[in-house]
Amino acid sequence: MHYLASKHTGTICILGMPFDSTATYRPGARFGPMAIREASHSLETFSPMQEADLEDIDFMDMGDLELPFGNPEPALAIIEHSVSKIVSQGRIPFPLGGEHLISLGCLRAITKEYQGLKIIHLDAHADLRDMYLGQKLSHATVIRRISEIIGLESIRQIGIRSFAREERPLANEILAEPEKIIDWASSSPCYISCDLDILDPSIFPGTGTPEPGGISFQQLIETLFEILRNLRVVGMDVVELAPQLDPSGVSSVVAAKVVRECLIALSPS
Amino acid sequence: MHYLASKHTGTICILGMPFDSTATYRPGARFGPMAIREASHSLETFSPMQEADLEDIDFMDMGDLELPFGNPEPALAIIEHSVSKIVSQGRIPFPLGGEHLISLGCLRAITKEYQGLKIIHLDAHADLRDMYLGQKLSHATVIRRISEIIGLESIRQIGIRSFAREERPLANEILAEPEKIIDWASSSPCYISCDLDILDPSIFPGTGTPEPGGISFQQLIETLFEILRNLRVVGMDVVELAPQLDPSGVSSVVAAKVVRECLIALSPS
Amino acid sequence: MHYLASKHTGTICILGMPFDSTATYRPGARFGPMAIREASHSLETFSPMQEADLEDIDFMDMGDLELPFGNPEPALAIIEHSVSKIVSQGRIPFPLGGEHLISLGCLRAITKEYQGLKIIHLDAHADLRDMYLGQKLSHATVIRRISEIIGLESIRQIGIRSFAREERPLANEILAEPEKIIDWASSSPCYISCDLDILDPSIFPGTGTPEPGGISFQQLIETLFEILRNLRVVGMDVVELAPQLDPSGVSSVVAAKVVRECLIALSPS
Amino acid sequence: MHYLASKHTGTICILGMPFDSTATYRPGARFGPMAIREASHSLETFSPMQEADLEDIDFMDMGDLELPFGNPEPALAIIEHSVSKIVSQGRIPFPLGGEHLISLGCLRAITKEYQGLKIIHLDAHADLRDMYLGQKLSHATVIRRISEIIGLESIRQIGIRSFAREERPLANEILAEPEKIIDWASSSPCYISCDLDILDPSIFPGTGTPEPGGISFQQLIETLFEILRNLRVVGMDVVELAPQLDPSGVSSVVAAKVVRECLIALSPS
Amino acid sequence: MHYLASKHTGTICILGMPFDSTATYRPGARFGPMAIREASHSLETFSPMQEADLEDIDFMDMGDLELPFGNPEPALAIIEHSVSKIVSQGRIPFPLGGEHLISLGCLRAITKEYQGLKIIHLDAHADLRDMYLGQKLSHATVIRRISEIIGLESIRQIGIRSFAREERPLANEILAEPEKIIDWASSSPCYISCDLDILDPSIFPGTGTPEPGGISFQQLIETLFEILRNLRVVGMDVVELAPQLDPSGVSSVVAAKVVRECLIALSPS
Amino acid sequence: MHYLASKHTGTICILGMPFDSTATYRPGARFGPMAIREASHSLETFSPMQEADLEDIDFMDMGDLELPFGNPEPALAIIEHSVSKIVSQGRIPFPLGGEHLISLGCLRAITKEYQGLKIIHLDAHADLRDMYLGQKLSHATVIRRISEIIGLESIRQIGIRSFAREERPLANEILAEPEKIIDWASSSPCYISCDLDILDPSIFPGTGTPEPGGISFQQLIETLFEILRNLRVVGMDVVELAPQLDPSGVSSVVAAKVVRECLIALSPS
Repeated sequence: MHYLASKHTGTICILGMPFDSTATYRPGARFGPMAIREASHSLETFSPMQEADLEDIDFMDMGDLELPFGNPEPALAIIEHSVSKIVSQGRIPFPLGGEHLISLGCLRAITKEYQGLKIIHLDAHADLRDMYLGQKLSHATVIRRISEIIGLESIRQIGIRSFAREERPLANEILAEPEKIIDWASSSPCYISCDLDILDPSIFPGTGTPEPGGISFQQLIETLFEILRNLRVVGMDVVELAPQLDPSGVSSVVAAKVVRECLIALSPS
Repeated sequence: MHYLASKHTGTICILGMPFDSTATYRPGARFGPMAIREASHSLETFSPMQEADLEDIDFMDMGDLELPFGNPEPALAIIEHSVSKIVSQGRIPFPLGGEHLISLGCLRAITKEYQGLKIIHLDAHADLRDMYLGQKLSHATVIRRISEIIGLESIRQIGIRSFAREERPLANEILAEPEKIIDWASSSPCYISCDLDILDPSIFPGTGTPEPGGISFQQLIETLFEILRNLRVVGMDVVELAPQLDPSGVSSVVAAKVVRECLIALSPS
Repeated sequence: MHYLASKHTGTICILGMPFDSTATYRPGARFGPMAIREASHSLETFSPMQEADLEDIDFMDMGDLELPFGNPEPALAIIEHSVSKIVSQGRIPFPLGGEHLISLGCLRAITKEYQGLKIIHLDAHADLRDMYLGQKLSHATVIRRISEIIGLESIRQIGIRSFAREERPLANEILAEPEKIIDWASSSPCYISCDLDILDPSIFPGTGTPEPGGISFQQLIETLFEILRNLRVVGMDVVELAPQLDPSGVSSVVAAKVVRECLIALSPS
Repeated sequence: MHYLASKHTGTICILGMPFDSTATYRPGARFGPMAIREASHSLETFSPMQEADLEDIDFMDMGDLELPFGNPEPALAIIEHSVSKIVSQGRIPFPLGGEHLISLGCLRAITKEYQGLKIIHLDAHADLRDMYLGQKLSHATVIRRISEIIGLESIRQIGIRSFAREERPLANEILAEPEKIIDWASSSPCYISCDLDILDPSIFPGTGTPEPGGISFQQLIETLFEILRNLRVVGMDVVELAPQLDPSGVSSVVAAKVVRECLIALSPS
Repeated sequence: MHYLASKHTGTICILGMPFDSTATYRPGARFGPMAIREASHSLETFSPMQEADLEDIDFMDMGDLELPFGNPEPALAIIEHSVSKIVSQGRIPFPLGGEHLISLGCLRAITKEYQGLKIIHLDAHADLRDMYLGQKLSHATVIRRISEIIGLESIRQIGIRSFAREERPLANEILAEPEKIIDWASSSPCYISCDLDILDPSIFPGTGTPEPGGISFQQLIETLFEILRNLRVVGMDVVELAPQLDPSGVSSVVAAKVVRECLIALSPS
Repeated sequence: MHYLASKHTGTICILGMPFDSTATYRPGARFGPMAIREASHSLETFSPMQEADLEDIDFMDMGDLELPFGNPEPALAIIEHSVSKIVSQGRIPFPLGGEHLISLGCLRAITKEYQGLKIIHLDAHADLRDMYLGQKLSHATVIRRISEIIGLESIRQIGIRSFAREERPLANEILAEPEKIIDWASSSPCYISCDLDILDPSIFPGTGTPEPGGISFQQLIETLFEILRNLRVVGMDVVELAPQLDPSGVSSVVAAKVVRECLIALSPS
């Protein structure tokens, strides 16, 4: 069953953000949201890992934003506006990327609503550059831009295994083990930004900048369960699936299964 | 060398069953038998794991059945008839799928020949539904149909990690660890049905419904060795390779290596 | 713009029929309706050939039927039921295949509603076999089955360039030039069944059984314009796009453009 | 031989512009320049059509610009600067796209240098929109933006077969047959902008927005020969090859052959 | 039906030659013979163009030679030996390549048997170089090597549209129109060497060095009919299908249809 | 950044060897060097594993040799000559394959320069055959040929998991654990030959003969670090990437990351 199509109201709000204009190595993340929906056909709604069924979860799929390509500012403005509407109603936005820069639009909205927000960033890449090829707004600078809004001290990173030399000092400050992060975030409102290239490319080749040496699917799911069950998550994004780079379709199924498990884990039991 | 082409008589009888009419998410398992033969060109006949050579094994490749697509009953009748002939001569059928529904045709034949047959089912999916999209005969119902012939108590499952909610209670009864299964089957005649999507999609992406979080190639081989060396196996199928879904060709090589190791392990040493 | 998504009521009713269980050489036509919708994003709604805009056309997209795979009878029953509802309201069904067998379900419905129906069949293959691999219901027998309902004399074929020897005599009776067909059909209600493999595989490689030596896109469009403008068309299908067989995506765009031009040409001006 | 690598000085200056941030339907034109160079390995340097050899032609390959993705203005500024340097030395820029928007950067430079410049635009799409998805700078608005610099009356279009309704009136003014264009341009300096999607997708599937019903390779070459031999061409671009959309590699070879023929035809004989 | 598998004796002898060691731009022609056999499944045995059925033709498929890769001499020796055996029995060899160099092995055998042999070479490339990258034995030198055995005056070329400058003078001597060739060859024994890249890459992209601007499928078939019906053909090869370069599979179907039509046309009626 | 393009002098000399004429199962390793360079764009120059940056490393990229296909001897002669020049200047050759046979050319040069050379061979396959399909020079015989120059006792193998039966006795003599090899090689000059198919095909599918059951990326890197840091390495090759067999591009990125880490580890710190 096509689970993402099946719900018309809900507290958790899936919202597709098909944008990839700043992708440098290989574009295609714009096709991510559609591919996740399609791949959800191949999965059951029932999660054996959580002994729960997506059909009992209070979520909905709001479809895709229509985002212009090229200059990212108009797209970021549309994203910020849409996410603001969701959070202002006390609902939980669950954006599907698209490239990682979309998280900046989301967090412009969310930081306005929640005091003391903490951000947990799962990724292979630090995304902490100040400029990338002369651009301030890029998938490679997105966490730096976010840190300028909320402060580096409100961000923790998991899984990073690629830095430019200039990023190393900043990354050192905020790279952390998942267990430490639970204590650090404590009862603060948290936003999770999950770049799926944190996974090893053997299981997730369909992404713009695959980085060998990543974590397994099982490790990612367990890390997410630990975070989602122990923290107060007010928003979460899943980004950087570029489905056409993996003609086997496995990457899309992986993304859809991550989304299924997170939707269930995000729900109050 | 093309090992599957090299033998013209033998006790173990490879038989291709290129059928996939009930595949729901992605078809293509019909191309499995041909792809396994072609991939066998890239492998040696010698198995370092077993220190034995396929050239010394008493097997043959009977080629492919010509199966009609559409309504599965005629195809199942052809399969049943062909497998009956093999088992009536005291030989061991080794069907290559094709989709999982072909196992039903095989077992219609084999259960007639062997009293007290036990079935060991390796898979990512339970395949225990009663109906699927209104159809009784489907890859998603095949074990349920088989259980109606032989009883659920004569079936054990390994590796299942995806269920519909309705399948959960039945699956609970028969899901087992490989070690337990040796005791359970003891000296009964056994049939092994191996859906290759039990493997993690990182190593086996070429299948209709890949399910992230599976076992490794090494784990599958060890599980199969344990079963094949300790039980009295009277038939075995290997199903659900859909080679064109993995353009790298690795899935076909994986299937061919599983077949090589099983042919050797099945042989009395 | 995604033109097929944009209309919610209309006289011409697009209806996706994702079914391909009897495909013999290469499956995948099940993905046709979805691919046509997606490819419509790349096309304008305006037709320079007809100086008209799809936005002014009275059509709607009813989405996809959920069809079971395997035995085709249940799928044909669902198709017949759905098409019957459309024609009983005086509307024009515009099914998107799926494999060619879906036309049988459509015509079971339409022949009941319209007396003196004529069928115009555009295709590379005659589809006039009585049985195919032992099956009565197959993409290769569909026109034979339809002729049993309505009589061979009510069918004309265009573009056929592949026959089995047994089909030759029947095909000789009904193969015709487009110009002749206008006179033949005159003011009768007509159903158009358009198998896109009538096109040369250079422009339409994404189909299960490509047959070299076909007509050009321009020739197909002109033939369709001649038929649609001069006859009283009460239903039309477009079948046998198997999009994943053409990784360039061009076949899907070709199908979407054929659909756009037919929707406009079908409309009373 | 890799002909584009073989020259280190020359009057005609190939310059790669790997940029595709505003591509709406399918990105990938960024890989165009590299693919043209690689495909040139498969072609001879000798042109039987012109009985001349590229080795005798006075051209060079300046490599690729390093262009930032995202906001197009910085990329356009780099393009304008680089092309200005070439034209200020009296040389002929021969940019390889990338997406069509790069022509805007080129023409910002060239219109400053040449009075009375005429632009001949070969394309399937009119690219005359004022805004596209809220963006002024887009592959779909590029000719409109250029017309604001130089006036619509200095532009002629060839091959256009797709318009939005809003583009129709403007396009009517400037669509022309190649023969008429020779008279119109007469002895003025001319810039040729050649979007390769003017070709039929059967021979050029590797492009972002393929439009069925295009011209043949032979027709394009003859049209280009007519223009290049009869007019005073001061610059020419070839854009919109997205090589990864055509896994057969043919589109890249087509582009490389177009470039080879144009380099020879551009040369004074 | 898999027509190439269906015959076990016959005058015309299909023989696969899976060799491509000298391919320079893109290898893969080794997979040609197997792909032609597989693609023959999708075609009828009946030819509407010739109103005849392959099932009535006196041909057989001898399978593939096992050819070593690397140094071509051992492979050429095996080819020469095998073809000699066929022609010494008065049968007609019908080799399937593989790269074009295999024709040298074939002609070493055939020129010994037949006095006054004429060779008709259909190709996009002249293959008349003396050396290619320092090698005497190469797909790019094959006709030159053959001319050293039989003399340039016994060779005619059709369809050539790519030369190196050095090849131009030789090619000028032997390039001819099909009509002229019938008179020229008259009643001499003839060998036809058909490099399928003579076709336009739109219909035959699956080849190592596609050359835009080729002939259509219909033109090739008609040229071959003219030759085969009017001359005394004692051998014919079909080479340079590299099936994996065309993921749509159309190139393999084109090759299989060319082979079907030639087998029928070669037969005395 | 494209790191391999950035250096014009250096002690470690990358040299591409695009040759694959003896590849038996699937060719394509000729495209390896180019693909490694392109994939290096997607990686940072900084290695978090070694806390060092490639920009500080004393290496250069000498580009690709132009190697003829077909008979391997001329290619091996060019390789030997080029590598001799590098080692005679006291520099460290770092060849990028190409197929494994290129190592023979490299070692013909290196064994002349260094007395007491030891060879460490990482691979899935023993490559110890005497003949392969009648050829002495083959990717499957390369280590045997090398052993004839230097003696089997100067070679150790790591990771081998596929043998022909005839290779078993030789392989038994030289298969070793990495730890043992450090002692064995001690202070001798060492050459490392790394066939990337030692990796599991899940992370490295893009190779001619993938062999399931290999080591992980992390294990390979650690093994290489142990060797490179503890031994006196005078040359190293990385071979058998066939990039087009992995359309996801991950295999190329894996190879590029292996190269980056080895370049840094090879450098005196």
